[in-house]
Amino acid sequence: MTGKLYVIGVGPGDPELLTLKAVRILKEVKCICVPKGREEGNSLALSIVQKALSLEGKEIIEAHFPMTKTKQQGLGIRGQGLENSRLDNKWAETVKNILGRLNKGIDVAFITLGDPAVYSTFFYLYDRLLELNPNLKIEIIPGVSSINASAALAGLSLGLADERIAILPANYIDNLKEMLGKFDTVVLMKVHKVFEGIRQTLTEMNFLNNAIYISRAGMEDEKVFKNINSVKEEDLNYFSMIIVKKGR
Amino acid sequence: MTGKLYVIGVGPGDPELLTLKAVRILKEVKCICVPKGREEGNSLALSIVQKALSLEGKEIIEAHFPMTKTKQQGLGIRGQGLENSRLDNKWAETVKNILGRLNKGIDVAFITLGDPAVYSTFFYLYDRLLELNPNLKIEIIPGVSSINASAALAGLSLGLADERIAILPANYIDNLKEMLGKFDTVVLMKVHKVFEGIRQTLTEMNFLNNAIYISRAGMEDEKVFKNINSVKEEDLNYFSMIIVKKGR
Repeated sequence: MTGKLYVIGVGPGDPELLTLKAVRILKEVKCICVPKGREEGNSLALSIVQKALSLEGKEIIEAHFPMTKTKQQGLGIRGQGLENSRLDNKWAETVKNILGRLNKGIDVAFITLGDPAVYSTFFYLYDRLLELNPNLKIEIIPGVSSINASAALAGLSLGLADERIAILPANYIDNLKEMLGKFDTVVLMKVHKVFEGIRQTLTEMNFLNNAIYISRAGMEDEKVFKNINSVKEEDLNYFSMIIVKKGR
Repeated sequence: MTGKLYVIGVGPGDPELLTLKAVRILKEVKCICVPKGREEGNSLALSIVQKALSLEGKEIIEAHFPMTKTKQQGLGIRGQGLENSRLDNKWAETVKNILGRLNKGIDVAFITLGDPAVYSTFFYLYDRLLELNPNLKIEIIPGVSSINASAALAGLSLGLADERIAILPANYIDNLKEMLGKFDTVVLMKVHKVFEGIRQTLTEMNFLNNAIYISRAGMEDEKVFKNINSVKEEDLNYFSMIIVKKGR
């Protein structure tokens, strides 16, 4: 009997935001696979789980994601071919590690920060795993995403009744004006590197009072800035987002 | 000492998708407020909680939301004034019930299906409560939303790397073509009443193979249709969504 692969969203940081189902499965499985890589936050997933339950006697294996594939990179950067083949090797190794356990009948839990469907690198592995074994049993356990945790912390509804929501990785600020025009709520992810540009656009469009900056939602040092102009350089970090909500 | 109001997302249906935090607080509080109204699914929140813990000895109060305010209705329908004042009375009653307990120092948990920030009627109450008592202690506990549960069930990522996500209540199908053009992922909520129109647009745009219909995600009779054309009249219901994902 082949083992089952569970993909578990462990929530944004607070171990209490794990679901009952996540905790039960994590207690049951003998092997936990932890994403590691350039992306910040990967090792965080394990620390969240460690606070909620004992991992004694469990095998911990690492999944390497050395970089994030982006559309820009897909256009072909110098040396991209080499980088891609290194990346493929890393992925192949992770796939081999996971399938190795499953083929021995060992269930594996792949843990991921927040919710698996919301920008989790797991999906880079998903197709590769199913390609090698189309009959693989994979169950995805949804979790609390950082978007929901940020809205909760800010006391904001993302949408009510007929309202429309756009979720944008913040590198697309070129389209920000159009998006702010068309949507009731715009969620901007990973704003730390483009914060000034966003602040400028919000000011120009007179949306400054509609925007809230949330840093590290669900973590111990979480912070909400209801005044975007009070956000300082040191308040910016990878785990940050801006929610712009019209009619606020 | 005034009590504290907890607004708790109880997840999409499976009691195991409650968070540890939700369960802890629901065990601690003496009073639980349950939304009731025309919207389907409200009484579901209580049944989820009842499966996860004993409610013996707790006071259950009902919050009436007789209808959902929509933009269309806001434009002024015949008799709207009367309907609005009835609605205001219902809300005033709920606010009074909640504040009555809080003022006696009793903590209250307002439970809501899915995640509070995602189309929960609670936010109609939020401003009214804070208006009457700006110092009210309100803590929102995020939960697993039906969107995340649907994506998990369908084995779909909502977004990866630079991808952009739009979440649209399905009454806006006029803009569907534009949205499908501009976003990598389009989540259409409550599609049961406009299913045929959506199917037609997806067919015209050659996106039929990119769309998945998910019915009652997180509930016992949850279902995934990877072929939109196989969805029958009886498969359509209030707890349904379509996720259109390009490059699938």
